[in-house]
Amino acid sequence: MAMDFHHVTLGQRVLFGAGRAAENVAGEVSRLGATRVMVVASPAEETVAQQVCRDIDVAVFHDGVAPHVPVERAEVARKAAAEHAIDLIVSVGGGSTTGLAKAVALTSGIPIVAVPTTYAGSEATNVWGLTEASRKTTGVDTAVLPVSVVYDAQLTLSLPAELSVASGLNALAHCVDSMWAPRADPINRALGAEGIRALTEGLPAIQADPSNLEGREQALYGAYLSAVAFASAGSGLHHKICHVLGGAYDLPHAQTHATVLPYVLAFNAPAAPDAERRMAAAFGADTAVAGLNALRAELNAPRALKDYGFDESSIDEAVALVLPVVPPSNPRSVSAGDLRDLLRSAHAGDNFPS
Amino acid sequence: MAMDFHHVTLGQRVLFGAGRAAENVAGEVSRLGATRVMVVASPAEETVAQQVCRDIDVAVFHDGVAPHVPVERAEVARKAAAEHAIDLIVSVGGGSTTGLAKAVALTSGIPIVAVPTTYAGSEATNVWGLTEASRKTTGVDTAVLPVSVVYDAQLTLSLPAELSVASGLNALAHCVDSMWAPRADPINRALGAEGIRALTEGLPAIQADPSNLEGREQALYGAYLSAVAFASAGSGLHHKICHVLGGAYDLPHAQTHATVLPYVLAFNAPAAPDAERRMAAAFGADTAVAGLNALRAELNAPRALKDYGFDESSIDEAVALVLPVVPPSNPRSVSAGDLRDLLRSAHAGDNFPS
Repeated sequence: MAMDFHHVTLGQRVLFGAGRAAENVAGEVSRLGATRVMVVASPAEETVAQQVCRDIDVAVFHDGVAPHVPVERAEVARKAAAEHAIDLIVSVGGGSTTGLAKAVALTSGIPIVAVPTTYAGSEATNVWGLTEASRKTTGVDTAVLPVSVVYDAQLTLSLPAELSVASGLNALAHCVDSMWAPRADPINRALGAEGIRALTEGLPAIQADPSNLEGREQALYGAYLSAVAFASAGSGLHHKICHVLGGAYDLPHAQTHATVLPYVLAFNAPAAPDAERRMAAAFGADTAVAGLNALRAELNAPRALKDYGFDESSIDEAVALVLPVVPPSNPRSVSAGDLRDLLRSAHAGDNFPS
Repeated sequence: MAMDFHHVTLGQRVLFGAGRAAENVAGEVSRLGATRVMVVASPAEETVAQQVCRDIDVAVFHDGVAPHVPVERAEVARKAAAEHAIDLIVSVGGGSTTGLAKAVALTSGIPIVAVPTTYAGSEATNVWGLTEASRKTTGVDTAVLPVSVVYDAQLTLSLPAELSVASGLNALAHCVDSMWAPRADPINRALGAEGIRALTEGLPAIQADPSNLEGREQALYGAYLSAVAFASAGSGLHHKICHVLGGAYDLPHAQTHATVLPYVLAFNAPAAPDAERRMAAAFGADTAVAGLNALRAELNAPRALKDYGFDESSIDEAVALVLPVVPPSNPRSVSAGDLRDLLRSAHAGDNFPS
C-alpha cells in the first residue's frame, strides 16, 4: 500500500496522573513562568477548580461558561483577561469550558493549560467554535491548542456511569471513523486503534463499577487519543451521517452515534483491510464488528434510531442529505441504495451486523 | 495499571509520498512564505538535493557537512545563513546533514524543512549535537525541531540493502527500548509498536529486493516512528549497554545493537506484559522474542559480539560500566550477575533466547 499523506502532529505536553491535578497544574504554571493566571470553570465546577488550583496564585476566577461558547460570553471573558493582565489560562471542566478558554486564546494568544473533567476531547485539538445568534462558527488556529493538558481520572469520578459510557462510545466513534476519514493515515490509525483498545478496557470497567479509577483512566486516555486521531483525520462517513441526523431531525448526539456506528463499521471494514486488522486487534476480537458488538452488548448500548425520535418516513430525505457529503476518502463507494439500507437497519435496529 | 506520566508530543508536519519530494518541498516553502532558502546537503547528496529543490528558488547551497557536526563547520554554516539573510533551511541527507541544519537553527531560530535520505531519525527530534576537540555536546531545543519533514522513499533507493537493514535494525532497537525507557508511556509504546510493525514489513522486502519501493516506504515510516518514540521515551537498558560497548571498546554501532537487542528483549519482556503483548502483535508472532528472532533470521542479522572485536576478557569491566547506568525504569531489577550472563551470551552468540 503506497503511503501518500500529510500528517500534522500538534505539539503539546500531556500529563496523566490520578490525584495529581493540583501538583501537575502547579508544575506547568511554574514551568511556563506564568504569574497572572485566570481560571475558567463553570459555577458547577467551582469546587473542583479550587482544588485543582490550590497550589497556584490565581489572579481571577471566571465562571461565565455556557454551551457552544456564545460570542457575548467570549467577549466578557476576553475583557476579564485583559483587565487582569492575564498571562495563562487554566481551564477546568468539559468541552464548553475548554471552548471558552479557546475563545480567549484565539484573540489574545494567551496560552492554556487545560484540565478536562469529561471525555469531550476539545483539549487535544486546535479547533475553536463560537456561537452568534444561534449560528455556530468553527475554525482552526494554533493559538487555541492548549500547551499542556492535565488529565486526572479522579476528576471524572463525578461523571455518572451512563453518561461516561455514552460519551465513551462517542469517543470510540471518533477512533473508528479516523480509520477512513479524509486525512486518515497510518499514524492516525495507530493512535485511533490505541484509543479503541483503551476504551474497550475502560468503559466496561466503569459500567461495572463507576468508582473504578483504572477504568476511568483508560477511558480518559482513550478519549484523549480519539480527539488526537479525529482532529488529524477529519470527519468520515460515520460523522457525516450523524451530523445530518442530528441537525435535520434533532436526534440525541450520543445515542445517534452509538446506534449508527456498527452499521458504518460493517459497511466499510471489508473494504479497509488495514483498518479492519488494527481495529480487530484493538478490540481483542476476531473481527472489528465482532469486537464492537461484544463491547456494545456489555454496555447495553442503544440499538435503534426509532427509539430516539427518528421516523421511518425521514429515511429518503436523510439519504438525499447524506449522499452529497460522503467523503471521497471512504474505502467503498456509497450509493443512495447503500445509505437507504444502512439507515433502514439503523432505524429498526435490525439486520444487526455480525 | 496506573497511568502516571508526562508525555511531550513534538509538533511537526510529516509529508509522505514516494516521488513527491520536490512537490512537497515546494509546497512547504510556499506555505511557510519563505523567500531566502539555504539548502544543506553533502557533496555526495548534491545531485539529489538539486532534484528535490528543482521547484524552489535557492539563495545558497551549502555542502559543509561532516560527521558529528564539528563546531567549526557549524560556524561556517551559520555565517553563510546570516550573509544570505536566510529565512528557511532545507536539509537533504542523513543524520550529519540534518545535524548541521540543526546547528544553524539552534543559534538563529531559522526553521528547517528536513528531507531525510536515511533512517537516522534526527529529523523527528529536538536533539542537537556539536563536536569540539573530539568531545560531543548534545542538547534539547525546540528551535532545532524541523517544522516539516518530507519523506520520499525514492531518495532511499540508493542506500545499499545491507546498510538499510543494519540501519533498520537500529531503528527497531529504538522502538523496543522505548517500551521501558525512563519516559516510557502508553503513547510511546503505541508508536513504537507501529514502528516495529512497519520495520518488520519493510526490512525483509528490502533484503529480498533492494528496489522494492513499498518496502522502502515501510522502513522509512518505521524509522520515523522509532525516532518519535525514542526521543520521547529516552534511553532504556538496551541503549545504555550499547553505549558502553561502543564507547569503551569501539564496537561497530549497528552490529552491536543488532546483537544485543534479543538478549535485552528476552530479559525484560517477561516483566513487561503490556510491552510484550504490543510487540508480539506488531511482530505478528506469538511472543516478542519469537517475532524478533524470525525477523533476524530472515535478515541474517549479526549474532555474536566476538565477531565484532569484543573480547571475553572485557566482560567484567563492561558489567561494571553498565551497572551504574541501568535506568531505574527498567521493568526488572538488573544485577551484576544478570549483566554478566547477558554479555557472555551476546559475546558468544549462544544461549540464544527463544
